[in-house]
Amino acid sequence: MADLSRLSFNQMTAGKATLREVVDACVRHGVEWIGPWRHAVGDDPGAAGRMIRDAGLRVSSLCRGGMFPAATAEERRKRIDDNLRAIDEAAALRTDLLVLVNGPAPGRDIEGARQMVVEGIAAIVDHAEKSGVRLGVEPLHPMFAADRSVVVTMGEANEIAARFDARRVGLVVDVYHIWWDPQVYAEIARTAERIFAFHVSDWIVPTPDMLMGRGMMGDGVIEIHRLREAVERAGYTGPIEVEIFNEELWAQPVDAIVSRVAARFIEFV
Amino acid sequence: MADLSRLSFNQMTAGKATLREVVDACVRHGVEWIGPWRHAVGDDPGAAGRMIRDAGLRVSSLCRGGMFPAATAEERRKRIDDNLRAIDEAAALRTDLLVLVNGPAPGRDIEGARQMVVEGIAAIVDHAEKSGVRLGVEPLHPMFAADRSVVVTMGEANEIAARFDARRVGLVVDVYHIWWDPQVYAEIARTAERIFAFHVSDWIVPTPDMLMGRGMMGDGVIEIHRLREAVERAGYTGPIEVEIFNEELWAQPVDAIVSRVAARFIEFV
Repeated sequence: MADLSRLSFNQMTAGKATLREVVDACVRHGVEWIGPWRHAVGDDPGAAGRMIRDAGLRVSSLCRGGMFPAATAEERRKRIDDNLRAIDEAAALRTDLLVLVNGPAPGRDIEGARQMVVEGIAAIVDHAEKSGVRLGVEPLHPMFAADRSVVVTMGEANEIAARFDARRVGLVVDVYHIWWDPQVYAEIARTAERIFAFHVSDWIVPTPDMLMGRGMMGDGVIEIHRLREAVERAGYTGPIEVEIFNEELWAQPVDAIVSRVAARFIEFV
Repeated sequence: MADLSRLSFNQMTAGKATLREVVDACVRHGVEWIGPWRHAVGDDPGAAGRMIRDAGLRVSSLCRGGMFPAATAEERRKRIDDNLRAIDEAAALRTDLLVLVNGPAPGRDIEGARQMVVEGIAAIVDHAEKSGVRLGVEPLHPMFAADRSVVVTMGEANEIAARFDARRVGLVVDVYHIWWDPQVYAEIARTAERIFAFHVSDWIVPTPDMLMGRGMMGDGVIEIHRLREAVERAGYTGPIEVEIFNEELWAQPVDAIVSRVAARFIEFV
């Protein structure tokens, strides 16, 4: 059974609630960690961080930086500037982890886009180090290769991360994105101290929607507990974020969502 | 530019037409190969094969066998029996290739299901050899891991195929299923003489539907021509099947579908 003190509530699991509403619901249900998104943090991440800490919560990560590939050098520079701001926001929130969703190719050249991801990370890693923020490369499910991330396997994410200091660039391991991979246990073992975060949800059958069809832990086919044991064997002991994009879930009151997440976390993670 | 004599029209590209209608349309548009599905071939594959040959067409493959994993030994035996029948049907159609879509896990144990696939192929490979039918393991896109195939990468399919004679068990390489894979070119080179078939379509953005959202070549982001060159460098010189599941396309008259497929094949494959 999972220890509730490991649970981090990713804000997009209650995608229609404000950050304040999510924080308050977490406090009411004994959740100690939160994973906010930039759009919900807003223009004053320092104030948002204080609000979160005053409520007694800690920030497990900030979502999201990345989106590096673009058709022109100017546009790629703009993406890098945005990532530098994201690092500042993470530091202001007093989290040490920025999650990178690395973006699609601007055209058909997926290998070229993968190179742009490496160059993008190289352009921000020094600022991240100075700011005390680690960069977590998140491989997304291959069904998002064309519109969200050219980084789609742990193997590929590990190759990218290996170009940088293991204390600064690592992986965000989300069961939804990697459960299907025949190499998943070998790659988890290889990732080892570079596992910077562990995210859970479930793959429901049939999948109601490519983006918004994630399920609550226990409702699908992912061997969540086995994957959790593997990341722990590899050395990861940090918070476990629950991140579920699901319209049906989002329609629930935030207290109902948080209490259900906590119960399922204890039973299935 | 692709040579039209390489084009094989997979019947599900005109999913609402009968086999006869597809054959006639292929003849009218200069298509020399067809890839039928079992449900459309019906109870007398010998007669269907004669009808196809009388029209001057050849059969590139029969879709599909596979679906090996099941919860009970009895059910797995039934699946094997069905595959033995599929081999007979392929032989009666006078094609030397049966495409295997290997099936999902009966529960959460995806590794156990992968073992059942290996056992299933082992149980039918002798009958296939005696029947002059090769078995083509088709890795499907990982988004189908839970409902259609636990075999989701070329690497995994190559590991399975390597357990058997290279003349009898190989791979069906479909660009839609494998284009996202960072290892795709290395795996194509590794597959070499085990490339038994090459399928094309395109990945459109946004994807309108997980199952029925495939696009016409040229409408999406897949580097089809580059992948075709890679399979040819690896040694494949056989027919190239166009397989597109798309409701909008299926709503067109069969002649419009076949002529559009032929034009796009020449331009984008």
